[in-house]
Amino acid sequence: MIKAGIIGANGYTGFELLRILGRHGEAKVTAAASRSNAGTPVADLYPALKSTYGDMLFCDANISLFTDCDVCFTALPHAASAEIGGILHDAGVKVIDLSADFRYDSLRLYEQTYGVNHPRPELNEKAVYGLPELFRDKIAGADIVGNPGCYTTASILALYPLIKENVIGRNGIIIDAKSGVTGAGRKADVGYSYCETADNFKAYGVTTHRHTSEIEEKLGVTLSFTPHLLPVKRGILATVYADCSSDADAVQAAYDKYYSGEPFVSASTALPELKWVRGSNCCRIGYKLDKRLGKIIIISVIDNLIKGASGQAVQNMNIMFGLDETQGLEPIGEYL
Amino acid sequence: MIKAGIIGANGYTGFELLRILGRHGEAKVTAAASRSNAGTPVADLYPALKSTYGDMLFCDANISLFTDCDVCFTALPHAASAEIGGILHDAGVKVIDLSADFRYDSLRLYEQTYGVNHPRPELNEKAVYGLPELFRDKIAGADIVGNPGCYTTASILALYPLIKENVIGRNGIIIDAKSGVTGAGRKADVGYSYCETADNFKAYGVTTHRHTSEIEEKLGVTLSFTPHLLPVKRGILATVYADCSSDADAVQAAYDKYYSGEPFVSASTALPELKWVRGSNCCRIGYKLDKRLGKIIIISVIDNLIKGASGQAVQNMNIMFGLDETQGLEPIGEYL
Amino acid sequence: MIKAGIIGANGYTGFELLRILGRHGEAKVTAAASRSNAGTPVADLYPALKSTYGDMLFCDANISLFTDCDVCFTALPHAASAEIGGILHDAGVKVIDLSADFRYDSLRLYEQTYGVNHPRPELNEKAVYGLPELFRDKIAGADIVGNPGCYTTASILALYPLIKENVIGRNGIIIDAKSGVTGAGRKADVGYSYCETADNFKAYGVTTHRHTSEIEEKLGVTLSFTPHLLPVKRGILATVYADCSSDADAVQAAYDKYYSGEPFVSASTALPELKWVRGSNCCRIGYKLDKRLGKIIIISVIDNLIKGASGQAVQNMNIMFGLDETQGLEPIGEYL
Amino acid sequence: MIKAGIIGANGYTGFELLRILGRHGEAKVTAAASRSNAGTPVADLYPALKSTYGDMLFCDANISLFTDCDVCFTALPHAASAEIGGILHDAGVKVIDLSADFRYDSLRLYEQTYGVNHPRPELNEKAVYGLPELFRDKIAGADIVGNPGCYTTASILALYPLIKENVIGRNGIIIDAKSGVTGAGRKADVGYSYCETADNFKAYGVTTHRHTSEIEEKLGVTLSFTPHLLPVKRGILATVYADCSSDADAVQAAYDKYYSGEPFVSASTALPELKWVRGSNCCRIGYKLDKRLGKIIIISVIDNLIKGASGQAVQNMNIMFGLDETQGLEPIGEYL
Repeated sequence: MIKAGIIGANGYTGFELLRILGRHGEAKVTAAASRSNAGTPVADLYPALKSTYGDMLFCDANISLFTDCDVCFTALPHAASAEIGGILHDAGVKVIDLSADFRYDSLRLYEQTYGVNHPRPELNEKAVYGLPELFRDKIAGADIVGNPGCYTTASILALYPLIKENVIGRNGIIIDAKSGVTGAGRKADVGYSYCETADNFKAYGVTTHRHTSEIEEKLGVTLSFTPHLLPVKRGILATVYADCSSDADAVQAAYDKYYSGEPFVSASTALPELKWVRGSNCCRIGYKLDKRLGKIIIISVIDNLIKGASGQAVQNMNIMFGLDETQGLEPIGEYL
Repeated sequence: MIKAGIIGANGYTGFELLRILGRHGEAKVTAAASRSNAGTPVADLYPALKSTYGDMLFCDANISLFTDCDVCFTALPHAASAEIGGILHDAGVKVIDLSADFRYDSLRLYEQTYGVNHPRPELNEKAVYGLPELFRDKIAGADIVGNPGCYTTASILALYPLIKENVIGRNGIIIDAKSGVTGAGRKADVGYSYCETADNFKAYGVTTHRHTSEIEEKLGVTLSFTPHLLPVKRGILATVYADCSSDADAVQAAYDKYYSGEPFVSASTALPELKWVRGSNCCRIGYKLDKRLGKIIIISVIDNLIKGASGQAVQNMNIMFGLDETQGLEPIGEYL
Repeated sequence: MIKAGIIGANGYTGFELLRILGRHGEAKVTAAASRSNAGTPVADLYPALKSTYGDMLFCDANISLFTDCDVCFTALPHAASAEIGGILHDAGVKVIDLSADFRYDSLRLYEQTYGVNHPRPELNEKAVYGLPELFRDKIAGADIVGNPGCYTTASILALYPLIKENVIGRNGIIIDAKSGVTGAGRKADVGYSYCETADNFKAYGVTTHRHTSEIEEKLGVTLSFTPHLLPVKRGILATVYADCSSDADAVQAAYDKYYSGEPFVSASTALPELKWVRGSNCCRIGYKLDKRLGKIIIISVIDNLIKGASGQAVQNMNIMFGLDETQGLEPIGEYL
Repeated sequence: MIKAGIIGANGYTGFELLRILGRHGEAKVTAAASRSNAGTPVADLYPALKSTYGDMLFCDANISLFTDCDVCFTALPHAASAEIGGILHDAGVKVIDLSADFRYDSLRLYEQTYGVNHPRPELNEKAVYGLPELFRDKIAGADIVGNPGCYTTASILALYPLIKENVIGRNGIIIDAKSGVTGAGRKADVGYSYCETADNFKAYGVTTHRHTSEIEEKLGVTLSFTPHLLPVKRGILATVYADCSSDADAVQAAYDKYYSGEPFVSASTALPELKWVRGSNCCRIGYKLDKRLGKIIIISVIDNLIKGASGQAVQNMNIMFGLDETQGLEPIGEYL
């Protein structure tokens, strides 16, 4: 049984990690740190976890409580996350970091995007980008994994095969993305209150969202990315526009080359809806060619808390520890 | 044109007052105070009001800005509201208070319920309970009106005629009430965030909600009141259970005696839904007799921000100033 | 591997059966009948099931396709369900019926409530009421199980121990229940369209809902039951009012006597919310004594599609086949 | 008092017409036809209208009931709408048609888009496109107005000034639009049921939506238009992408040239949210330049039932009859 720690466990990604690992079978959570909730029972904050975690308490982010772990999921604000992740790494613990700290190849791009100095630049060299369908082999041998962002997972999975196989144009790509409110995290903020968010819809971070540079680095292109806030709790749907003079066979062939046989990612001409994947670790991609305009419209959907965060983190853990990659992960969406 | 001031204008009741008075025709807002937003344009906080309020700024709750008003709506926390309302009253301004400070006949019951000493007990004597359909004449001559609570408006309107006409039993009455989230006000609180509130439903304040004593005082009975939090923005639906051996004619006759000809309140055997009244100043009451059990089930619906707060406050203003009672108030629900 | 059939598989309970059995491990669906969708791939109707059911088609309710099953879940309209369930029973297939046909001890009460003649009255004698926490032993030996209604599960679990242990009064019990929209099934009906249901709330079936007689029969009391339609997809919260002069210890002792050690049902003084159980097979019960009025207020929550339907059906299957009772069932709610 | 008729009054646009005209002051509804609800009281279908319409019944679409009207709003399926509208026109009634029948300059484009022969091609010549901010003068003299589509109103208002003033490129424009569910009308359809729509989000009509040709014709460009279904009842937000090497001053100048002084349309660098306009007749436009990519991102929001349908229809009526253009129309959004 793999001993897993979670640092920054009180947010929604923390909850999902607790939920997924609570029914994983080959890993279990031995310590869950939350500064703001240290000493509080996990089940007080998340009553739905009562039957699994009983009286377990959130602890402080005291390193000594985690050095005994086989793996640690770090989910703190950027810079803080790499700092504590670095210490755990030094102590021989494998680290899966859910912040942005180990996602970038280019330190400069990271520092420019997040406006901080990376606390452990030498570790960034060793870190692997945790998108299993594209970088599985490297993840298998990694000690530090930078778990991708939610918007970036949906966007990169939609575009990577088509760009690599030269099926679409590299210029003028537009990603119009829509996310549920859990993407903003668990916080006291009038802007994310029920009354300000329900029955509403808006764009935000227009031309400035940090995930833009992460997407661009992994795809090797420059593009336009605009996120919106959907009045749903979870799920991301990205509508992607690109120039495309290829036919549907070429598009499908590109996707098949990368995703054929994948348990969690698939692409076809059926345009997916948010509910197809909610609650699952799947990414479903659909596309339609607009021959009149020489464009392709791609729809990519994920559950932002699962494939876009905690599920993908567990998928990475499964790979790093040689387990069945699907262990503990749901291939079936909730639908309802 | 009546000059109206609002003190405590940044919350949802403040917004609704601004909205209703902005299209009233015979009254206009000359000053709107918000401590936390003083100096900010109204339209920055509420862009929907841009076309009406232009560049008007929220001001401080500086008394001198309001002594020129004909009427002032005070919507501060209890005790603070009576204090400033008292000063305005002393300066000759009519006061419509949306806090609990002037709602009770019994000072002792008020102080017990709210755990404070009333700052202006002598004014409480002069204050009138602002439920127009029951106390219109007194309101017409009042200088201070205590605007009723939202749950209490829905509950009292449903029960008052039946109790007064001895159509139902006075013992064992149960009010199971459900409210939209605006009832909790505009605040940064994880408990009212979208992610914690949407797709959820819960009871709260069970056996302890403060509106219980207000309802009991006005009805002259002891009863059980349980509020719940609905995942909708606005509206209250109260399901009321009482012993009843009368027939439907007697029930209807009791309601007709009080509400016949009323523009905003009506009762019939049609059971109302929340959407019948949303956006309007109406209270719709429906009832059904359960002969098998000797009970009556009453459904009462209001928009908590309008008939349950700001609309009723304007209705009181209309009465106090001899205007058409329906001026500026919507008899048509939004439905959608 | 237990071979399971589903007849009436296109509705939401059918979807949940497909979902739960698709990840059960010791049972698998060998045939799923839907008259309206026969010949259609399951994944066309429910894309979220694509990865599990591949190209499996809905079939016709042709008996010969099901006689090979070990167990069959029948979910047709009343009377039709008992008829086909009876034929399957005659063929040696264990039957778990999700309609009302095998829920009643009293045929007369069933026929009066549903307005039909029971097609197989002699089988009704043999059928067992499938509420495992109360009737586990009988279920273990049953060939036909009448799976309880959703409202009835939440209501009976809340009240049964307290009535049996004489902790509450038997007269004057009131159940004010609120259900998500999936309770109405999957159908084309303007009344359940998004635009008529979202942002709305209403009572329905006041004094006439069929679940009343099922609850009354199992509890041996007469009571008032009023259902309401919540703008959420899934979940039931029942607020129960009863006379109670006992203290909290006596209440807890009564619950403990029946539910201590139960994996899916628990009771305490913590008042549960809908989201505590959504997605799980749990029933969480909370209570508060109102000493002032000599009453108890009980809150009982379930997921109507799981503990209120398909999850409980699988729990019954597990018991009938000697499996771990929790196999395939989720003790953790979704929370989000 | 202008006598107004409504033909096709039972849908959501019909409800909004009834609601708006019910409080208009200078017009009143004298007959409201609904084939499916003829003989039913308006208030049975829409209880929120009870206080205004009392016992008024829906009538049949019998022409003789409408020839006495000064103006008739026709809201039937395409072709049917022009047919009855044509007869009313022949009888001297002014017609404001909410179908697509009188929206196109090019009959061929209309017939190609809607797959029908236009029943009254000669009247199409006389009809005026009812977008007041762009075609006010023509509307003032019109006998037949083709009321624009909802998506088209939001899209055209966002793009028209920028295209006409050559501020943006004419090629490669992308409109990614999101609409509330009322856009689909009032109908019994599982696809628009609460359970299939809430918590969901999807694209639809990708590359094939009929509003594309209407937008293209009015703007004189070819573009990509993709609509999505938002889980809200009302409102459209369109995110528009175009090439733009101009600066913000030039953009603002273009908008000001067309919208300066307009009561219902405004543009600025503040990016609007859906709730800014819900319940009002306003279109709010915001934009941001992306200098890095040489693009402009424009956000345009309307209430699809008001500025996108019934409110704009009444605005057109006001213009046609020489009334204050804002009569009966709400410049203030609901916000909540």
